[in-house]
Amino acid sequence: MKQVTIIGLGLIGASLGLALKQTKTPPIVIGNDIQWDAANLATRRKAVDRVERDLQQAVAGSDLVVVATPVGALSAVFKSIAPSLRAGCILTDTGSTKREAVRLARELLPATAGFIGGHPMTGKATGSVDEPDASLFHNTLYCLTPTATTPPEDVARLAALIQEIGASPYFLDPAEHDGLVAGISHLPYLVYASLMRVLATEGSWRELSELAAGGFELTTRLAERDPKMYSDILTTNADNVVRYLDKLLAELSSARAKLAGGEPKMLAELEAAQNARLQWEVQRKKAQEGRQ
Amino acid sequence: MKQVTIIGLGLIGASLGLALKQTKTPPIVIGNDIQWDAANLATRRKAVDRVERDLQQAVAGSDLVVVATPVGALSAVFKSIAPSLRAGCILTDTGSTKREAVRLARELLPATAGFIGGHPMTGKATGSVDEPDASLFHNTLYCLTPTATTPPEDVARLAALIQEIGASPYFLDPAEHDGLVAGISHLPYLVYASLMRVLATEGSWRELSELAAGGFELTTRLAERDPKMYSDILTTNADNVVRYLDKLLAELSSARAKLAGGEPKMLAELEAAQNARLQWEVQRKKAQEGRQ
Repeated sequence: MKQVTIIGLGLIGASLGLALKQTKTPPIVIGNDIQWDAANLATRRKAVDRVERDLQQAVAGSDLVVVATPVGALSAVFKSIAPSLRAGCILTDTGSTKREAVRLARELLPATAGFIGGHPMTGKATGSVDEPDASLFHNTLYCLTPTATTPPEDVARLAALIQEIGASPYFLDPAEHDGLVAGISHLPYLVYASLMRVLATEGSWRELSELAAGGFELTTRLAERDPKMYSDILTTNADNVVRYLDKLLAELSSARAKLAGGEPKMLAELEAAQNARLQWEVQRKKAQEGRQ
Repeated sequence: MKQVTIIGLGLIGASLGLALKQTKTPPIVIGNDIQWDAANLATRRKAVDRVERDLQQAVAGSDLVVVATPVGALSAVFKSIAPSLRAGCILTDTGSTKREAVRLARELLPATAGFIGGHPMTGKATGSVDEPDASLFHNTLYCLTPTATTPPEDVARLAALIQEIGASPYFLDPAEHDGLVAGISHLPYLVYASLMRVLATEGSWRELSELAAGGFELTTRLAERDPKMYSDILTTNADNVVRYLDKLLAELSSARAKLAGGEPKMLAELEAAQNARLQWEVQRKKAQEGRQ
């Protein structure tokens, strides 16, 4: 890869630029962002070699184009860049839902450009302009969702680049991806945001917020994430989120019945939750050590 | 206060001992715990001057007795120590629900011992044996729930001690306390434990747990807390938890209807949640600075 274009210079896009510039044979990295503050920060931190404000000029001649914008901007970006993509160019995105990205790519991009949906599982996408961090991808999984029509050599080249920035490619089907992230990320976010709203609209919110301490800080941190970004995510993954939400509503309704029935016996459920969480942590540590 | 007894040497009890030993005129601190590992750790860290295995001997002659056991142990502890309390002795607990503590104290303790419910809002109660930390109470609120029959001079003495360990006394009614902590602590815990259970019982849990990254780590950390401790808490605060849970269920059901209805417009709700969270953080920082 001699030249890479990154469209969207938020935390993910700018960190990717910085990580690429630190590989053994760094490509030329061209950046683009509609927000000047993001573009300026990426330039100052040398996450990009140069910023190109015109989208078509930004992608011209690039071997790889990474669209790291919110999911809701994909359609407009794909339309803008389609005429200017080099034949044989690889395209990928970094959004949190993949079915919609693959569908839009099929509809809007030329057949000569190979699209591979991507989603780095850094656990840090905030939607705000943050300091880029080249180590953001170290020892993380990087989802790739090639389809039956994706040229295998394109997949191999992108996977190799992902390994160079310290991540492990994790291949899965776009629909499978969306189902999984609905459970581990989109539903939790929705629950936090709902919890935050319920409390903040209480008459006693002043006292509640005064008393809230470290546990609450932890509890509601997800609610800080960019509402626009997550609104797009929920829109493009509504079916999967509803599927999990129904299970959670059933679980919470069952807890409600026990609590309202007097002498609630919830120990077994709470112990199961603790066990699952502790086991997950052990597995996670093992997996991270295995990848190092 | 010349002599203080601390019953229950978990994180809160042992940290309190350590903090008391670092005041200008430290009292003699006598510790008690049915778990040997907790008692040994507190002794090694000099959080207590000595451990007294016999509850009645542990409290004999003390000016202050702090019961820092799980809420479910209060009844048995109160019964055991009642005959041996010095007249004029002040009693307090550190549990997460206060109506039940006040009720049990009224029922089981002699009228000559003044009980004041207490709850330090450290945000760190885990229920496990943790390293004691004298700074745990620095710049935190410490709830005190005196009742109409509590001697004001007892309240003043306990409040002064709490200030000496770096915390700010926060006075409220036991029922008011339980209503507030149900919202900021008990409901969030129940929700996270439920979420964890829903995911861990999925057929795709192996893949879910592989992909789960930093955001999930944050999301589910509360589920790690001691199930026995929280089972007690939920039992003694069921009415308040149900009240908030009903509001959350309504909020989540409304989100479900929007998501299932196609073209979900949730931006306004998500923005409100983010605003509430950001405002809370600003207020919290201000309050902490004001207390310093």
